[in-house]
Amino acid sequence: MSLDAVLSRIDTDLTTSIDRLMEFLRIPSISTDPAFKENVDKAADWLVDDLKSIGINAEKRETPGHPMVVGHVGEGSEGPHVLFYGHYDVQPVDPLELWNREPFDPALEDTAHGQVIRGRGSSDDKGQLMTFVEACRAWKAVHGSLPCRITFFFEGEEESGSPSLVPFLEANKAELQADLALVCDTSMVSRGVPSIASQLRGMLKDEFTIIGPRIDLHSGHYGGPGLNPLRELSRIVASFYDEDTGRVAVDGFYEGVHEVPAEQLRQWQNCGFDEAEYLNSVGYSEPHGEKGYSTLEQQWARPTLEVNGLWGGYNGAGSKTVIPSEAHCKITCRLVGDMDPDALRNRIRKHVEDRLSSDAKVVWDNDLEGSPASVMNLNRPEFEAARGALSDEWDREAVFTGMGGSIPVVGYFNSVLGLDSMLVGYANDDDAIHSPNEKYDVKSFHKGIRSWARILDALTRK
Amino acid sequence: MSLDAVLSRIDTDLTTSIDRLMEFLRIPSISTDPAFKENVDKAADWLVDDLKSIGINAEKRETPGHPMVVGHVGEGSEGPHVLFYGHYDVQPVDPLELWNREPFDPALEDTAHGQVIRGRGSSDDKGQLMTFVEACRAWKAVHGSLPCRITFFFEGEEESGSPSLVPFLEANKAELQADLALVCDTSMVSRGVPSIASQLRGMLKDEFTIIGPRIDLHSGHYGGPGLNPLRELSRIVASFYDEDTGRVAVDGFYEGVHEVPAEQLRQWQNCGFDEAEYLNSVGYSEPHGEKGYSTLEQQWARPTLEVNGLWGGYNGAGSKTVIPSEAHCKITCRLVGDMDPDALRNRIRKHVEDRLSSDAKVVWDNDLEGSPASVMNLNRPEFEAARGALSDEWDREAVFTGMGGSIPVVGYFNSVLGLDSMLVGYANDDDAIHSPNEKYDVKSFHKGIRSWARILDALTRK
Repeated sequence: MSLDAVLSRIDTDLTTSIDRLMEFLRIPSISTDPAFKENVDKAADWLVDDLKSIGINAEKRETPGHPMVVGHVGEGSEGPHVLFYGHYDVQPVDPLELWNREPFDPALEDTAHGQVIRGRGSSDDKGQLMTFVEACRAWKAVHGSLPCRITFFFEGEEESGSPSLVPFLEANKAELQADLALVCDTSMVSRGVPSIASQLRGMLKDEFTIIGPRIDLHSGHYGGPGLNPLRELSRIVASFYDEDTGRVAVDGFYEGVHEVPAEQLRQWQNCGFDEAEYLNSVGYSEPHGEKGYSTLEQQWARPTLEVNGLWGGYNGAGSKTVIPSEAHCKITCRLVGDMDPDALRNRIRKHVEDRLSSDAKVVWDNDLEGSPASVMNLNRPEFEAARGALSDEWDREAVFTGMGGSIPVVGYFNSVLGLDSMLVGYANDDDAIHSPNEKYDVKSFHKGIRSWARILDALTRK
Repeated sequence: MSLDAVLSRIDTDLTTSIDRLMEFLRIPSISTDPAFKENVDKAADWLVDDLKSIGINAEKRETPGHPMVVGHVGEGSEGPHVLFYGHYDVQPVDPLELWNREPFDPALEDTAHGQVIRGRGSSDDKGQLMTFVEACRAWKAVHGSLPCRITFFFEGEEESGSPSLVPFLEANKAELQADLALVCDTSMVSRGVPSIASQLRGMLKDEFTIIGPRIDLHSGHYGGPGLNPLRELSRIVASFYDEDTGRVAVDGFYEGVHEVPAEQLRQWQNCGFDEAEYLNSVGYSEPHGEKGYSTLEQQWARPTLEVNGLWGGYNGAGSKTVIPSEAHCKITCRLVGDMDPDALRNRIRKHVEDRLSSDAKVVWDNDLEGSPASVMNLNRPEFEAARGALSDEWDREAVFTGMGGSIPVVGYFNSVLGLDSMLVGYANDDDAIHSPNEKYDVKSFHKGIRSWARILDALTRK
């Protein structure tokens, strides 16, 4: 009964909830680019004010990087104590010319799959985190208070490696204690199929520069005898892979990788994942990962070594007959099982260094971090409760899925706070997060809010 | 006698000649970047005014691209009629951060090898073309007229593929007729060794984009199944080369390439080329070209496939977990012997297309041109005359050398105007042309001017 009142309040307030999100999306809180620091800060202030507007005792907490937003409500109330996590920073927008509208001028658009909210951050993660905030707002409006004690914890560095996260958790262990962390930064395995992520891939980032000649050279004067770092880089990047098997060819790369249990594979085969839609939507006719593994395994349960950026020489208008002095490469690895980020970093660096030509040097960026993969504790009763709540909302059996992405905070909640996490998200694979024209389905936003209301109800039902 | 007067006038006027060059160098006439169009035009106007100041009937000629500068003097005078060619456009300046001063704020600097003029274009080609202009100025000052009929022909598109050159030559055949073309855009085989280039490599330019997914993808959602065009590009670029032999592995690449005759090799071995200096000055301990060929052969007589630019994905601050939609590559080939640019372009494109993965596409830039290699007609008496004049000026036997660079205009003078060319230049390999901190030795400038005076004298001596 009381839940129904909250749900209909959510329906009534949807338009204003969307307007609120639009306001949030207009703040270009790109955390990885120092030029946007002020805007990241502005987004934190916006969140603090919004939490306060529903009676949450929230404040901005400075860090050496971007601020955290922490809020508390319901101290002393009985029942479970949940910590809700989301991030208010967003990805860069380049290549800007591929956007159909200003990334930070969001709008509603009609698409083949219904109405969407278009704009950077609409899905990752502002839209998703607001589903929980709006659920709390409706609950408060109907009942005058929230159903249990909730700690809100919002980060502004998720898209730039969370440098301040662990120190902040360490320094605020006591304040951030809770029974369970709820995280809304994941997607549904397929449109309309409610999903709870049961495992996440870890992440390793690295960057290197190959240096050839002392200065840029003229390819007429030195073309032939001259070592070209772009050729050197191409050869070394190519050597990362075994094209016959599709596997990464770095020695020891697969150490700590485990095969997926047959039972779990069976579940995944029946979880509603639409392989054709997943591949075709971005222009693929087949999966391009390790041979012998299904698309879902390649995405959820197999590690990768991905080149995210490659550059050197002249890329302006026209042509330039140059042999550049430097060639640059940014890579990330997705980790699974017990892969150790630090050991892997050393293996990759050795792979590169072992293959350098005479007269070539490599310089590494030592400011990039790594985090291991994580597996959720599905034995906790909250998972079954949430699965029921989600199944009710979406009229479809909710499923436990793997996830190809990395949410390092989950590992840190566990290692630093001793806190288990439950990941529920409503994004779709076609949301184009980290890409031009990012969007969030209005249906995801609306039913996402309703889902959280149902989950809060299920977790606190007497 | 009369030559001596000209030579001493050149010595007396050196400072003002340098000042004039500085003024010319301050005009940022980068032809490959449309943003600099006005400045290229300004440089043409500067040249016209300067030629007029020594009584040459000069004017700027518009083209669909950057203008040509054409000047005439001595019509009706007896003796030979020479056409002097140089280019007043310059290379881009990136990477700007590696310059020790503003590229277009030239200055004199003292170095281990004596005083130099530092700035973009100081050597390639403004400084070199002014050696001839200053020689004419001194001659005119001493004798009141020039020693023979001279046509001046200056181009503003040499660093951007000379798109307007051939149409302009075609349209002005009659006006540009002469007995011999003199070109000053080459370097000395070694510091202080006067050189006449007897063969030039040709050039083929191409650019392609490899397209993978329809949009940039998130490496968490698609890392594994996703085809990454940066990986694709690296694999294909690596496949251009046979690392064991150092040869280009494109099928049929070496068609039309001839071995250097033993006699010529002997000459090259004794031409004063300092291999150690050439390699060490840019940080190489050994030549990196085709095994079994000397450094000079690799530079002058062997073809290359060079990657001049490679880019795709994220190259900003921090990290971005993206699988980009596109990867880009700019290449140039240096051609020798009878290599056919058009046939080679097709072979290279086929090499790339044959190696594309399923779901990958390639798009080619069809606006880039090619020009074959050229060999000078050393049987003409002017070559011996010039060799004598250069030997006198530099107190060192002048040599006929090969050249690794490409000067397409030489081929077009021959094919369109039926005109032989003689290439004499005073640049040094450490001039860093096309690189940050380009310079021109004051000695090159000074003795270059004197050399042209001696050559004009030798060509016109009764």
